[in-house]
Parts: sequence; C-alpha cells; structure tokens
Amino acid sequence: MSRLVFILMVFSCMAEALLAQQHPSLILTREGVAAMRAEQAGPLFERAVAEAVQQVEAAMQQGIQVPLPKDMAGGYTHEQHKRNYRSMLLAGSLYQIQGKKEYADFVKAMLLEYARIFPSLTLHPAEKSYARGKLFWQCLNDANWLVYTAQAYDAVYEYLSAAERRQLETQLFRPYADFLSVENPRFFNRIHNHSTWGNAAVGMIAIVMRDEELLQRALYGLPLRQRASGETDNDGGYIYEKGQSRAGFLAQIDYAFSPDGYYTEGPYYQRYAMTPFMLFAQALDHYRPELNIFAYRDSLLIRAVYALLQQTDEAGVFFPINDAQKGMSFMASSVITAVNIAYGQTQDPQLVDIARQQGTVSLDQNGFALASALQQGQLRPFRRSSVMLRDGADGSQGALAIMRASNTRTTISVPFKCTAQGLGHGHYDKLAYCLYDGATEVLQDYGAARWVNIDQKAGGRYLPENNSWAKQSLAHNTLVVDGRSHFGGQYELASQHHSEIRSYDFGQERLQFVSAREVHAYEGLELYRSLVLWQPPQLYKPILIDLLQVVGEGTHQFDLPFHHAGQLLDMNVAYQTAEPPEVMGEAHGYQHVYAEARAAVDSPLLRFNWIKDQQFYTLTALAEAGDQAILARIGAHDPHFNLRRDAFLIHRKPAAKNPVFLTILEPHGSYDPVSEIPTGPFSQVAGLERLHIDRDYAVFSIRTSGGSQWTFMLYTGPEASTVRHQLSINGNQYEWEGRIAVQSVP
Amino acid sequence: MSRLVFILMVFSCMAEALLAQQHPSLILTREGVAAMRAEQAGPLFERAVAEAVQQVEAAMQQGIQVPLPKDMAGGYTHEQHKRNYRSMLLAGSLYQIQGKKEYADFVKAMLLEYARIFPSLTLHPAEKSYARGKLFWQCLNDANWLVYTAQAYDAVYEYLSAAERRQLETQLFRPYADFLSVENPRFFNRIHNHSTWGNAAVGMIAIVMRDEELLQRALYGLPLRQRASGETDNDGGYIYEKGQSRAGFLAQIDYAFSPDGYYTEGPYYQRYAMTPFMLFAQALDHYRPELNIFAYRDSLLIRAVYALLQQTDEAGVFFPINDAQKGMSFMASSVITAVNIAYGQTQDPQLVDIARQQGTVSLDQNGFALASALQQGQLRPFRRSSVMLRDGADGSQGALAIMRASNTRTTISVPFKCTAQGLGHGHYDKLAYCLYDGATEVLQDYGAARWVNIDQKAGGRYLPENNSWAKQSLAHNTLVVDGRSHFGGQYELASQHHSEIRSYDFGQERLQFVSAREVHAYEGLELYRSLVLWQPPQLYKPILIDLLQVVGEGTHQFDLPFHHAGQLLDMNVAYQTAEPPEVMGEAHGYQHVYAEARAAVDSPLLRFNWIKDQQFYTLTALAEAGDQAILARIGAHDPHFNLRRDAFLIHRKPAAKNPVFLTILEPHGSYDPVSEIPTGPFSQVAGLERLHIDRDYAVFSIRTSGGSQWTFMLYTGPEASTVRHQLSINGNQYEWEGRIAVQSVP
Repeated sequence: MSRLVFILMVFSCMAEALLAQQHPSLILTREGVAAMRAEQAGPLFERAVAEAVQQVEAAMQQGIQVPLPKDMAGGYTHEQHKRNYRSMLLAGSLYQIQGKKEYADFVKAMLLEYARIFPSLTLHPAEKSYARGKLFWQCLNDANWLVYTAQAYDAVYEYLSAAERRQLETQLFRPYADFLSVENPRFFNRIHNHSTWGNAAVGMIAIVMRDEELLQRALYGLPLRQRASGETDNDGGYIYEKGQSRAGFLAQIDYAFSPDGYYTEGPYYQRYAMTPFMLFAQALDHYRPELNIFAYRDSLLIRAVYALLQQTDEAGVFFPINDAQKGMSFMASSVITAVNIAYGQTQDPQLVDIARQQGTVSLDQNGFALASALQQGQLRPFRRSSVMLRDGADGSQGALAIMRASNTRTTISVPFKCTAQGLGHGHYDKLAYCLYDGATEVLQDYGAARWVNIDQKAGGRYLPENNSWAKQSLAHNTLVVDGRSHFGGQYELASQHHSEIRSYDFGQERLQFVSAREVHAYEGLELYRSLVLWQPPQLYKPILIDLLQVVGEGTHQFDLPFHHAGQLLDMNVAYQTAEPPEVMGEAHGYQHVYAEARAAVDSPLLRFNWIKDQQFYTLTALAEAGDQAILARIGAHDPHFNLRRDAFLIHRKPAAKNPVFLTILEPHGSYDPVSEIPTGPFSQVAGLERLHIDRDYAVFSIRTSGGSQWTFMLYTGPEASTVRHQLSINGNQYEWEGRIAVQSVP
Repeated sequence: MSRLVFILMVFSCMAEALLAQQHPSLILTREGVAAMRAEQAGPLFERAVAEAVQQVEAAMQQGIQVPLPKDMAGGYTHEQHKRNYRSMLLAGSLYQIQGKKEYADFVKAMLLEYARIFPSLTLHPAEKSYARGKLFWQCLNDANWLVYTAQAYDAVYEYLSAAERRQLETQLFRPYADFLSVENPRFFNRIHNHSTWGNAAVGMIAIVMRDEELLQRALYGLPLRQRASGETDNDGGYIYEKGQSRAGFLAQIDYAFSPDGYYTEGPYYQRYAMTPFMLFAQALDHYRPELNIFAYRDSLLIRAVYALLQQTDEAGVFFPINDAQKGMSFMASSVITAVNIAYGQTQDPQLVDIARQQGTVSLDQNGFALASALQQGQLRPFRRSSVMLRDGADGSQGALAIMRASNTRTTISVPFKCTAQGLGHGHYDKLAYCLYDGATEVLQDYGAARWVNIDQKAGGRYLPENNSWAKQSLAHNTLVVDGRSHFGGQYELASQHHSEIRSYDFGQERLQFVSAREVHAYEGLELYRSLVLWQPPQLYKPILIDLLQVVGEGTHQFDLPFHHAGQLLDMNVAYQTAEPPEVMGEAHGYQHVYAEARAAVDSPLLRFNWIKDQQFYTLTALAEAGDQAILARIGAHDPHFNLRRDAFLIHRKPAAKNPVFLTILEPHGSYDPVSEIPTGPFSQVAGLERLHIDRDYAVFSIRTSGGSQWTFMLYTGPEASTVRHQLSINGNQYEWEGRIAVQSVP
C-alpha cells in the first residue's frame, strides 16, 4: 500500500469515526439489534438465547469473582478468568437482544473490578511462556480475554457513564492493549496465530474506544526491529521466521493462509486460528467498510472457512493432519463463529446446512439470519468435493490434495499430504495419506499424542511420545527409508522444504488421480507417489490405487506402513508370531513398535484382509522376492501408557534399489452382528500386474474375481494434460490421451 | 399327565380337527387375514410388507433354485436352501395378505421341486455333525427349514389341489418329519434347543397336515430308550443329560427355562432358542386352544420373553454371558418374532415401545396389531429394572442377578452371574459380573472367541481360543485361585454345581445389594461376593461396591481381574513396564495374557483411573502389604490373531489366607473432544476403610473428596431380613435393621 493511499484512508477513517459515535458497532450493530428485536427468531436462535440466559444467570448467581492471577491452565484462577470473559460476552449480547439492565449491570460490575486490580498486576507468576501474560500465564490467553471482553464492553458502552468509560479505558483497556503490543513485540509482531489473537485483541478494543492509533498498530504491526534468531516458542515454532518484512493483521492474512485458504499447521489449528481473523474482520467490516476486508486477497478469509470445512470426514471430524487431537470437528465453537460470520457475507445456503448440523448459531445478527434461513428451508446440502489446497503464503509450497468419490453406499475420502512442514506442529510425513470410508478411518493418521486439558496426562500438554512417536514418519502412511524419519526428524531441515504436486485430475468422479514428488526427505532419493481413486460399477465401493516409487542411489531398507488399526482376518502368506513380540528398533518411532508377527512374502501378491467398524477391507500389493510383511503394534517403551495399542502392517523391502510399491486398498463388504450375515467378506481383486513403471509413466492391470480386467495408463510427467501418449511394452502398444486412462480388457 | 387326561385330550383334539378344516391356521389365521385385509395398516406394517415384496420379487427373478445338498454353512447350497425357506415364508404370507396368485405359484413350484428331489436324498455329504441332516449338514438346519416351510405350506394349502397336497405330504413333509424324529432320536429327544427346533418342525407340519400322530410325537417326544452316556454334541454339550425322564415340546418348556424364564445357556442362545418355542406355541394356541399353551407353567413362555428383554444393556444389546458373540441384540429377527407373538397374548404397551425400537413387525396379525398400536400411540416406555432370574428347571440352581440404578445422566447395570454351568456353551466364571454405564461396557465380559459366519476365521465356527481363553475364569471379572480356572475348567465337574444367592434387596433404587456364594469352584475354599449399587446425591453416577472374600484352608495366590478395556490415565502406585511384556503363564487362560506392567501396592488403597468411550472411571480398592497390581493385555499365544488386544487390571494377592477384596467402581465424569473440556476427571472417593468383615457381616466406610463420609453395614447371613443387628467394633456400636444400611457420619 502506498503512503498516499494510507494517509487518505486515515483521513477517511477519522471522518467515519466522527460520524459513527454509536455502539454497539463491533460484532453486534445497532441496526442488527433493532432487526433482531423486531423480527421473529428461528428456533435455533431462540435456543441459543435460552442457553445463554441459563449460563449468564448461573454466573450472576456466583457473583463477581476476579481473583488475582496465580494458576496455570486448568487451575482455578485461569479457568475463572476464562469463565468471566465468556459470561461478560454472553451477558453483553443478551443485554442488547433483550434489553435487560441486570445483564449490563453484571458486565459493568465485572469490568470495574478488572479495572480496579489491573494497575497493580505485574507479570503472571508462572514462568513457562516465551511471552508471559498478566491475567494468564501466556499473552495468548490475555489476548483471548481482550477479544471477548471488547465485545462485552461494546455491548454496554452506551449504558456506562462517560466517567466509567474513562476509568475502564485509562486503567484497563488502553494499558492492556499496550501491554499486548508495544510491551510484547515478540508476541505481537510474529506471523503466527498467537499474534493474530494479539492483533485482533488490540484492534477490537481500539474500535470500541475509537482509538485510531491502536487500530493502525493492530492492522500494520509494530515497526519490525527483530531478526530471525532461531529462537522458538513453547511449541517449538520460530519466534521470527526468516524473511518476514511486515507484521499486523493484514500481514497475517497475507502470510498465514495459502491462496486456497489452507493453514500450514493443518485444520486442527486452523479451527482455532480462524476465530480472531473472522471476529476482527467482522468488526472491521462494520467499522471500516472501505477496507473491504472480506474481499481482501481475493476473499481469502471466506475461502479459508470453506477450506476448513472441506478438511473433514463425513461426520465433520477434521482430518488429523500434523499435531491434532482426534475427534475435533466442525461442531467446535470456533467453527460455529467462523461459519456464522461467513454466512453474513455469503448467504450461502450450504452454510445453513452446516449450521443445522452444528445445532446452534451465534448470538448476533449473523446467527439470527442463519436460524431464520434454516426455519424457512433455505438450505442446500453441504457438498464435500475433491479439492487441491495449496500450501505456502503464495501457494508454492506443495499442497494438501483431497480426493473424494461417492456411491450409494459411502463416500471415500483421501487426504494426501504433500505440504510444507507446518511450523512447530508439523509431522515428518511427506506424501502420507489417510483413507476414510464415510467416517471410518480405514488407514488412520495417529494424530497427536496428547489428551488436551486432561491433567492426569502430563497436565494435558503434549506428551513425550508426541515427538518420539506421533511426529515420526513411521506413525503415518508413508515410506520410511533405512529406519529413519523424513529429514531425519530434524525440524530445521524439514522447515526448508516442501513436497510438490506433479499433476492431478479431479475432473471425472469415477477416475481421479493425483501425483506428487518429494526429493528432500532423504538425501539422494526421490520419492514419487501417485494415488488413483477409482469406481467401476462392478465394485462395491470406490477403491484406492497407491503407486509409490523411489529413484536414487544405493540399496536401502524400505518400510511402507499401513495403519489399519483393525482386526486381521486373513493374510495370504504364512506368518510366524513372536512370543513375546520384539521391539522393532531404537529410534525414529521404531522403539515404540512391536513386531507381533513376520512373514516372508513368497507370492507375487501380498493380500491382507481385515475388519474394522464391522466393515471388510483388503490390501493387495505387488510383491517380489525378499519382501516381508510385518504385523506391528504400537506400545513399546511407553512407560506411562500414553500410546494407543493400534495395529498396523509394514510392507518391507529389506534391501532394494529403486523399489516400486503398487498397492490396492479395497473396501468390499460389511458384517451385521445382529443377523450375523457377512456381505462381501472377500476381496474382489484377483490379479494385479505391473506392465511398465518409470518416473513419468505407469501401466498396470487389475483383474477381478468376477473376470473383469482393466489396464491403467498413467502419465505423471510435466507435459500438458492433452498430450497423446504411446508406449510399447512387451510388443503391445498402449495409447492414451491426457494424464490417465483405463481400458477394459476384453 | 395322567393317561386318562391324555386320552380325553386326544379325543377332544380329533373333534376339533374335524371342525377346523380350514387354512391358514398355523401362525396366520383366516380371521387374522380377513382383518388385515379390511383394516388400515400402521406404517410399520406397511413397510414390512413393502420390504417383503421387494425380497420375494428378487427371489422370483432368480427363479426356482433347489440344488442338491453339498456345502457346509456359508457355502452355496446351504445358503440357497436358507434363502428358499425365507422366500417361501414371505411369499406365502404375502399371498395371504395381498391375494396375489403369483406368490402362491412361486411357493407351489418350489415345494414341488423339493418334493421331487427329496426321495432321492441320502444323508448330507458333510460328516461333521452328531446328527447329520438331509438338505443341510446338521438336522438343526433341516428343522429350521421345516418350521418355516410349514408356514408357507399352510399359507398356500387351499390354493393347492388335493393331488398336489398329497404329493407334497407323502413325498416330502411326512418323510421329512419322520427323518427328524424317529430316524434321529439323538436329535429329536434331547432337552436342548436343537430338539426344540425338531419338536416345533414336526409339530407345525403336523398341524398343517392335521396329522395327530405327528403332533403327539412333537408334544411328548419319542419313547425314551437312551441313557446318559457322556456322549457330547458338536458344542461339547451332553446328548442326554442325567435324569431326563421326558421328551417333546412340553418337556422342553418344563426343562429348558427356569421358573423366571432364564435360559441356562444365557441370552445369546435364548434369543435363538425362543423362536421354535414361540412359533409352535402360537400355532398350538390357534389349533389347540384348550392346551392353553401360553398359560402353561405359570405363563412361562411369556415370562421368558421378558426375561430375555431384561438381559440387555441400554442399547438393547444382550449381556454376553457364556458363549455369545458381542453385538447381538433385541433387533434380531428371532426376538422380533418372540415380541410380536408375546404382544398377541399380552397387548402390553411396553412391547409397542420395543417394536418401535426394532423398527419392524411380523407379517401376521400380531405384527399388524403392534403396528396399529404404535400408530395410535398405545406405547409405554420399556422399563429395564433390577431382576433376579433364577437358573435351573425348578429355579434351584443359582441365578443371574441384574441390578440397575438410574439417575438423570445414565443407567448403571450390573449382571451378576451366580448360575449353573450353562451346558456346553457355559463359561467357568462363577460370581462374575459385568458393569455397564448406559451402553458402555465399563467392565466387560470377553464374550465368545468366534466370528459367526465369517469364513476366514475357521469357517465362522468357535475358535480354539474360545476354550483356551474365553471360557476360562481369567477372561471374566471373577476370582482366580492359584492360576487355575473354576472347577479346573472341567466341564463334567462344573456341570454338577451351581452358585447360590444368599440374600438380596432390590427394594430401594438408591441402595441395592445382592450377596452370593460359590463353594465348589475351588476345593476347600468358599467364595463370598456381595455387590452394592449405591447412588448418593453427592456422586455423579451410581457407584458399585464389590466385596469378595474367601474362607478356607491354606495359603494361595488370588487374582482378581477387572476387564476395563480402556486407556489408563493414572494409577496411584509406581509401576514398571516390561520390555517386552511377559507371558503370564501356561494354562487356564494365562498363556494368552501379557503382563505389560507390574506394581507393588505400597499404599492402603489402590487407585486405577481410566478413560473409555470418553468417560472417566476409577477403581479404588483396599490393599494390604504384598498386594500387586498387574496391567495385563490379551494377545499372547494367538498364532492367528483371533483375540482382541483388550487391556485389564489384575489385583493380585500372591500368598494370602482368607483374603478380602473390597473395591469401588466409580464412573465420575466425561470428556468432550470438541470443547476439549473434561468434566469430573478425578475420583471422588477419598477414603475406604474396612471396619469388620466376616462371612455374614461387613461394616466399612467411604469418604469422599467433598468431605462426606458414610458407614455401610451389611448382613448377608441366613436370618430374616427384618432382624435387628448389633456389632461392637473397636469400642464403637453399630446397629441396623435388615440386610443393609448406610449411615452418614457427621
């Protein structure tokens, strides 16, 4: 932005500010409140109001409790200050919606109590954070407090006397905003979700107070003085990334998300990170509409909401990419906030369907509109589709590719991780994928080794096994070479690189593919992986074809794990169980794994048949002499029982040069424990033959037990998608146009 | 029954038979069909008809396929003959309900085809059964075929010409009935569910054919010539039990169920065994009302239906007592049949609630009436309650005691097994219990080691591990002495004994108890176990208090396992994990168990805190010097991965004399992975103190973290329940009236 434009904007904003001397004007607006009071609310909104009333009445019963800061997360003072900002937010909103003064009085009394104690507060006594807070052990929580309390203050602003406002602003809000910014540049000036909370907190209280200086600070950051030093925060992320040239809220939007709205840490953290973006943006849209913040960067924030929703299974649970506690879903309050604000901008009837599934709405004009739309049936089923979500601020750092195919029985989803490292919460799993059959994890990602907020497990923090197991390559469905994780599990090295998507085609739902490459994870080795999601009418459900090849120097041990977490029914090669099971190694995750059984794969195909969630699956893999199958289980060297004892299969090539793994993952039936009838318990894949595979071309054939046979022809190289390809293999001619073709063999 | 009464009955029956020359008259009746055609059906019945039409139309598309017998269960000819009887039954019923001749023609064509091949059939080629069949590998399946086909024949009887009927009866039905009875007395004359199917098959075809000789055979059996020989059937049960003096259907009712309707093999097999009882009884009720079969033995069959329904968790899944595949529930078609027939007798609105949950009804006048009642809202919620289900034909062989207590959060259910052995499907687990929190298994029974009909797992049959693990005492929540199962795991010995209920009181829902004794499981040792289910308002959910004591000679090793199958969060004593884990023993189930960690319990209390299904539980047990805690897991010596790798805790007293185990099982909270907020993650039991415990008296106290304290006073001896008890312990006087009392300590 040029200096001149900036100055013009400041003037225009100041004029605007003079005109807009009315509150609420942050998330709620005067016009919005008037409409909510005048019109009939939909049932979802009425229920949200009723629940808020219940919570606020309960808090009012407890009385004003503003303890001096003392405890860590989970302790009394921490949780009480969290309860307080939630209660103030709800009470303020209810005061606006229902007009009851008791609610405004409650907010006022609590704010004044905070203003009374704030000037005496030094830093929080716990010395655990890189950026210690005042009310909380880390500035992050203080910023949360201010984001919500700013809304409460906005709601009761006009209820307060000028003297009361002056007292609050001079003794509490302005000093608090300064504390979170100028006094903590390490917290405020990063490109990081912590700083986004800080920017939003400062910016939102600025808008309520009409404090233009603070608002500019929130939008554009403090002057950048710091250099990348290699210093890290509590999660292992860098305080300052190399090359950072800007700070503040607009820089966060520029750097935090890729052009497709992907957040580099993954959806578990995106869910959390979205909140300050959406709330501050909503406030800016009301207060400074000429910024046109929701249109900023090609409507980036809105697209990030959709990108987040796409990263869910059929039950709305987020794909557990990088550090992620399993079970987190779009039911989270942060996602409800984001969806409500996005609906205010888009009026997209698919978001009405999401709100229906979420079962609640925000206590503001967006939630009011959503609930009304639902009541009036203005809903379109939310459609998950195949999407390519590029990673990196400019979209150049690989991508998360999500393929989906549906039939009448299910939707198969395959998130394929070809991204950058994902900052401090990243796992070392290049070219890893998960496989979902509806909401069943057919091939799982372990997720994080952590029970968030469960005190018995190391205070609810990340467990040691998060580093030693969950982050390691072996904990994912990806290749492990010579028993070492990608990049040797070294964060600094891993942070410099990303995978690449070579080509993809999601155009035909019955035949989709994506092909990717990783050339940095192992020095001297190039990893190529192509996934094909295919639904011929003859098969029960769509199947996944997984082609992985390595090109490079030397002979290595190659382990390809498949994390099925189910119950083995049958394997086609003889295996010997170990009594007791052997620990598989000493590092890179192997120290946490038992080999329960081993098999020499003395067959051209390895078939592994299992049951999970009463559904039948079979893995069929090409095998060659010397291959081994290892039936593995997590749980070794786990002195505090922090790990789940999940089972997985390792397809091992103990000493191979430039190996090829060609594997079919096939859902083929189900079991009903009530009728006790199995439907389709056996694989329909009878044959799998490799005809030609190199870096750019793959030709192979699949034969089913029903007698059908198909030849797959795949081109993954750099040529345009319309080129015509010709291969001669064993005297046969193969010809096709474009990236991928399948021919039925008569 | 006296000879004279018998002769009079025969005459009366013959007169009746002359009058009743009309069909259908077996399950369907002319009057019932007329009413179904005249009145509007409820939606549930309409849907059942629509589904039947779909199935029959599909079968008719396939054409008449009556293959020569060849395959075992799961194979083509076996499954096709099963499909055939189902199709004929549905087609016959639809013909009656809708009047479409195509359906009658389909039944007729298939019956004639069976009549054509039947005379040429020798025994089924598979030689695996103690009683080989004709169409199937075992007579049991042939009897199934005839029970259903008799109904189809009844439905089309009047559609057929006299010549067709003669052909069917002389070439198919009468010879088949003779085959299943006089040619197979080992199958037909047992007191066993196999024979009940045989009796019903012969009796039902007899009614359709008006064949009084066959009907008498079905009701009263063949002359008893065989003696108990110790010979067993394919499941290990005796062909002839000692002391059997009668056979036939009425004897089955007399011997198969206890006076409370408990079936000695447990609910999994009762579900299956009920079908021939209920179907044949329904037919007898129509054809021979003067038998008053549903009133027989104090309405035993009806009470058996309710006993079956009571043996379910809150999701309707049967308690997995003895051999039982988990997941079997009251949704099974056999239970639907039983509930529909029982409703025809009782018009109980609670059964309408069950039908609502089952979501379908029978294609007959009972199902029609149920569907109409549901449509008209004639429903009362089905109420599970605490029940004492005595075992043994005369109720003298112990009991299954089920305690239940509910609050607003859940229903806690505790089935406590103090029964007889349960025939060939019995497990060696005297005084074992399971604990349910709603439908969550807090302490599980392993169930059977079997995947019914899943061919990959030993053809779907019982697995070797069913004997070596699932039946062993260690696989249950009961005491194991000196590493040996109850009765040494010897069926013959175990079959001679049963446990005893000493006393119980289910009168107050907030404080229930049951006390039982087992004096035969271990020679020279008497086992006493009392369970108290208690709900004080201060606690989150009802808690279970488990008091187990042993009286007898010598010093022994005592292992008390708790099968939590969850994830350890915390234990109050230091434990050392074993790397790799050690196999615990060589026999009696120990050979299948790994000790993953061990602890010396150097504290007066052992506390074990875990999470399962996102809910928090804690076990708090009295401990004394020398006690050990073993964190165990199933899975050793399992060469085909037939066992689930479930975790359990063993409280071990390695060398004790007359030990006492006093344990509290406490559900105390839950976790929400979306809000990531744990509610009540910690036990509220702060103290547990033993004041006095002997064979007849127990006085102990519990203290909560909230500061409450209670003294429990329990009398389990033989005195009347109204007696006043007095004990002086350490100079304190304890006085109470009746079996149990709890006093709050000020």
